[in-house]
Amino acid sequence: MNSRIERFLKYMESENIKKAVILKKENINYFLGKYFMSFSVLVFEEQPYLYVGKLDKDYAEENFNFLEIREFKSWEEIFKGCDGVERELSISYLKYIDKEYKIISNKIKEMRMIKDKDEIELIKKAAEISDKAMNWVLNNLDDVKDLNEYELAAEIEYIMKKNGSIKPAFDSIVVSGKKTSFPHALPTKDKIEDILLIDIGAVFEGYCSDITRTFLLKDDEEMKKIYNLVYEAKKVAEEYLKEGITAKQLDSIVKEFLGDYEKLFIHSLGHGVGLEVHEEPRLSNKLKDNEDVILKEGMIITIEPGLYLKNKFGIRIEDLYLIKKNGFEKLSKAKIPEY
Amino acid sequence: MNSRIERFLKYMESENIKKAVILKKENINYFLGKYFMSFSVLVFEEQPYLYVGKLDKDYAEENFNFLEIREFKSWEEIFKGCDGVERELSISYLKYIDKEYKIISNKIKEMRMIKDKDEIELIKKAAEISDKAMNWVLNNLDDVKDLNEYELAAEIEYIMKKNGSIKPAFDSIVVSGKKTSFPHALPTKDKIEDILLIDIGAVFEGYCSDITRTFLLKDDEEMKKIYNLVYEAKKVAEEYLKEGITAKQLDSIVKEFLGDYEKLFIHSLGHGVGLEVHEEPRLSNKLKDNEDVILKEGMIITIEPGLYLKNKFGIRIEDLYLIKKNGFEKLSKAKIPEY
Repeated sequence: MNSRIERFLKYMESENIKKAVILKKENINYFLGKYFMSFSVLVFEEQPYLYVGKLDKDYAEENFNFLEIREFKSWEEIFKGCDGVERELSISYLKYIDKEYKIISNKIKEMRMIKDKDEIELIKKAAEISDKAMNWVLNNLDDVKDLNEYELAAEIEYIMKKNGSIKPAFDSIVVSGKKTSFPHALPTKDKIEDILLIDIGAVFEGYCSDITRTFLLKDDEEMKKIYNLVYEAKKVAEEYLKEGITAKQLDSIVKEFLGDYEKLFIHSLGHGVGLEVHEEPRLSNKLKDNEDVILKEGMIITIEPGLYLKNKFGIRIEDLYLIKKNGFEKLSKAKIPEY
Repeated sequence: MNSRIERFLKYMESENIKKAVILKKENINYFLGKYFMSFSVLVFEEQPYLYVGKLDKDYAEENFNFLEIREFKSWEEIFKGCDGVERELSISYLKYIDKEYKIISNKIKEMRMIKDKDEIELIKKAAEISDKAMNWVLNNLDDVKDLNEYELAAEIEYIMKKNGSIKPAFDSIVVSGKKTSFPHALPTKDKIEDILLIDIGAVFEGYCSDITRTFLLKDDEEMKKIYNLVYEAKKVAEEYLKEGITAKQLDSIVKEFLGDYEKLFIHSLGHGVGLEVHEEPRLSNKLKDNEDVILKEGMIITIEPGLYLKNKFGIRIEDLYLIKKNGFEKLSKAKIPEY
C-alpha cells in the first residue's frame, strides 16, 4: 500500500466500485511509484494486487513488496466482477465484463494532474538531464554545425542516456533549415544550416521532461523578428502563469498578444507533463467550457509558443513549469539564446 | 493509394464494410508505408483519407500525397457511419459510433504477418543496425567491463542512433550479475561483472529488430553448461524452422528438448517482429488450437531460448529469422560467442 493506492481505494468506496482493473501502463506505474516496463495488470479490490507474467514474477515480488503479486492466468479471471475500468480500455475486453461498469479515468487524471513531492523531484531530475544535453549544444554550437541532424540527435540522446534517462520522452526533434517549419519533423541526414530547432525530453524513473530551443545560425532579420516575438510571447504567458488562471485563458492571452501572427501559431500553448509527456491539462483556446481546467499549485506544464512560416522556417521556445500559488518555478533551466 | 491500401479496400468490399477507422499507430504507418509519429486517423471509405492536426497538415501533404489529407475537426465526423473498427479501439469512442460495427483487426494482422519486399528490406536494415552495436560490444569486451550497465546501454544506443535507428525498439536490457536472472531487468549503475546479458533492438523507418547475446565474463562451469544448453536449444529450433510447422509445435519441440530444464525457460520461444517488436505470430506452447499459426514464408520472427536460475544468473540467446519455404534466412548476424 502507498498513499496513492489508499486515495484511490477511498474513491472507489465513495463511488461504490467493488473491483477496478487498470491496464494503462502509466497509470500502473503511477500507483506502483516505480517504472515497470513489463506486461502487468493492477486490480483494485479491498486489497489491491498486480498480475504479471511468469517471467516477471520474481522481479515484481522483489520490487513491489507492498502489493500481492499474482501470475497472469486469464482475462476472464481478471475481469470477473469488475465494475470499474479505464476510458482507454480496448473494446476487445468488453466480452469479459459481466457487470455494469463505471469509468474511473477522471479520478486518476485528477490525481495525476497535481504532482506530489516525489513526482516533482523526479520531473526535476528529468529536466536536469535534458538541460545537460541542451547546454552541451549551446556550448558547442560551432562544432554542431559540422554534424547532420541525425548525428546531433545521437549526441543529444547519448548525453541524456548517460545521465540516467531511460529513453527519450518522444522522438527527438532535431531539425534545421526549412524543416523547422514543420512542428513535428524528424531528423534527417541533412547538414545543419541556417536555423536549428531542438525539442527533446528525458525520462527519469518513468517521469518526463520537455524543452525546446531554437538557434539562429545565420544573420537574418526576419528570423530575428519572429524569434523575438516568440520569446516575448513566452514572457507574456509567464506573467499570467499562476494558480487560478484557466488553461484556456492562458492560451487565449498569448494568442491575443500575437495579433496577426496568431495564424502562424498552429498548435496550442502547452500541455501537462508527468508520466506521459503529453497529459492533462492541455493549454488550448479550443477547449469547450466543460473541458477547461483551472491551473493549480502542483501542476507541471510546458509553455511553448511557436511561429511557423511555410517553406521558410519555424521557431519554438519551450520551458517546463511547476505552478505555484503566486507564480511558478521554472524546471527547465538551459539558457535561452538571445538574438 | 498503394497496394496495401488496395488489398484492404478489397477486403472491405468482400465483407461489406463501408467505412473503417484506423487509430492504431503501427497500423496507420503500415498503410502509409512510412513512419509518421504525429497524431493521425486513417479512414477507409471508397477513397481513403488521413486526418491530422493543423500543425502536421503541410508535412502530411508533402509526404503522403497518395492520400487525401484532412484537418482533424471532431470525433463525431470521423466515426459517422463507421462500421469497421480495430480491436484496440478504446471504449471511450463507442459513444460516437452510430452503426453496428465489425472488427477489422484480423485482416490487418494477417496482412502484417507476411512481410512484403519493402518491409523485409527495412527489417534487414534495422537488424544490421543492432548488429553493429552488438559487434562493437563483442570487439570491446575488455573495455566494456570498466563501464556500468547504464553507461554501456548509452554506448549501445548511441551506435544504433548514429546508424539510423529512430529509437530503441524497447527499453534496452543491458544487465549483469544476478540481475540476468530477471528476463526484463533494466540497466542500473552497477558495474558489469560475471555475466552480461544484452537484449536490444533498433527501429529503422518504423520497423524493428531484436537480438540478444549473453557474455560469460568469468570461468564458471555451471554458467558454461547452461549457456551451451541454450545454444543447443536454439539450434534445435533452427532445425525445424521452415514454412509449415506451427508456432506451438516449434515452442513445444524446444521445451521437450530441454527436458527437466524446461521449468527454467519461463517465457515463450519467440515472437513476430515488424512495425511492433512483439507482434504475431507468438511462438508459445500455451496457444489454444484456434490461436496457433502455421508459419509461412515471409514471416519474420525471433527465436530466443533462455534459462533463468533464481538468485544466480540467466542466459538468453536470440536471433531474428525470415521464414522461407524450406528453411530460413537469419537476419541478425552478430557473432554468437562460444564457451
